[in-house]
Amino acid sequence: MKTALTIAGSDSCGGAGIQADIKTMTLNGVYAMSAITALTAQNTAGVRSIMEVTPTFLTQQIDAVFEDIPPDAVKTGMVASAPLIHAIAGRLRDYRARNLVVDPVMVATSGARLLDEEAVGALKNLLLPLCALVTPNIPEAEVLAGMPIRDETDMEMAARVIGECCGCAVLCKGGHRVSDANDLLWAAGQTHWLRGRRIDNPNTHGTGCTLSAAIAANLAKGFALTAAVARAKEYLSGALAAMLALGQGSGPVDHAFDLHSRFAAGADGI
Amino acid sequence: MKTALTIAGSDSCGGAGIQADIKTMTLNGVYAMSAITALTAQNTAGVRSIMEVTPTFLTQQIDAVFEDIPPDAVKTGMVASAPLIHAIAGRLRDYRARNLVVDPVMVATSGARLLDEEAVGALKNLLLPLCALVTPNIPEAEVLAGMPIRDETDMEMAARVIGECCGCAVLCKGGHRVSDANDLLWAAGQTHWLRGRRIDNPNTHGTGCTLSAAIAANLAKGFALTAAVARAKEYLSGALAAMLALGQGSGPVDHAFDLHSRFAAGADGI
Repeated sequence: MKTALTIAGSDSCGGAGIQADIKTMTLNGVYAMSAITALTAQNTAGVRSIMEVTPTFLTQQIDAVFEDIPPDAVKTGMVASAPLIHAIAGRLRDYRARNLVVDPVMVATSGARLLDEEAVGALKNLLLPLCALVTPNIPEAEVLAGMPIRDETDMEMAARVIGECCGCAVLCKGGHRVSDANDLLWAAGQTHWLRGRRIDNPNTHGTGCTLSAAIAANLAKGFALTAAVARAKEYLSGALAAMLALGQGSGPVDHAFDLHSRFAAGADGI
Repeated sequence: MKTALTIAGSDSCGGAGIQADIKTMTLNGVYAMSAITALTAQNTAGVRSIMEVTPTFLTQQIDAVFEDIPPDAVKTGMVASAPLIHAIAGRLRDYRARNLVVDPVMVATSGARLLDEEAVGALKNLLLPLCALVTPNIPEAEVLAGMPIRDETDMEMAARVIGECCGCAVLCKGGHRVSDANDLLWAAGQTHWLRGRRIDNPNTHGTGCTLSAAIAANLAKGFALTAAVARAKEYLSGALAAMLALGQGSGPVDHAFDLHSRFAAGADGI
């Protein structure tokens, strides 16, 4: 059985962070492990409290995993400070981690910057050079490429700038601002547009986490990059299309969307 | 879709704690959320480091969940100190939490006591009176009932002592010391033996977490207590029988054992 590790924050309401990653990896057929960068007390209406771990404790978690069950793929999600990024990059380099997917979480849905300049620098200089793929959305690609993105041509240019600068493949994710559900994959000088179907679902909590975790799971199983991304997009589309409605804000997607018909009903018919 | 909350520790290697609970709840068809009591850096060979959260931060996580997505069932796992048990019991009482399953983690596989007297007292006096079911193994039932357990008659007596004292149902789990895979369910004065099949698998990391999470998931779906326990035992048997072999110590079970045939092979044939 193939294995994958997520290095990210914990989301108490289960729709994003390591919870989304564990669900996604498991439902995509790989054994999931986690190293937690920060705990959050949050729900679909917002984040109430954050407790960050120390770089030493994060390193202990990563060591515990790699020394016993070396993962076939790794993804990183929310890593809010430069010292934590240093700790992760150091260990992943030492262990020669394979199939690293970096979700460069740095801009909140509100547009607020979550990472300071030092952390963005550490991400670009230390973590991206180790990765197989980085998966920015439009605002994150703007920060990483240092240019505004207004259309699909800009997406292609930004992806190339990031990829050539950091020596990795880049999935620049479209969104409501540019190109909707169409994502641009730049790899080794080639561009591939992956056209997705727009699903009209306001519940998008954790979609970025889910996509990068699904890509990592498919890389762990041995799929080539383009196939891994295409399969992950298909999985996310299914999870969105299931139209789960939980919570008062933007709710989570249904990670187990294709399983529900397989479970017997309970006494109350559910 | 029914929902469930686990209140427990985090296991970096993914086989126990909230990771096992999230996998189990998801694979049993309910939406999983978590409130983390402590982070561990551990693998199948042992625990290296523990970072406990504060009662205030644990309460914030529980509040974030209940105020937005009230769970249809709750399970508690490792809660190592009396102040954390106080915080959990207070909140679960305030929210009138339904279908509470308490896995009274208090004795390590080595036999070492993990909870001090004060924490055991808080567990018995505050948490058990709120629960639908408590799931001790033999050493834990000995502590809770205050009596040695040498045979099946002792299991029945200990379960009755605990159940009558705390006003909850009791699943006293057999093990290699007494009655093997046969568990005794005591509920409202009735005893039911649930006979399981002994599976010769040395990899049992997280089996207690998995069983209690699966019971909670089935209670969330509306199954009556005896049916929920029977279904959970069947799920755990399947996860054990898949004979997953990961790590150098006692490894995790395969939570997704009945899914693997459904996933297409990767480029490397896995």
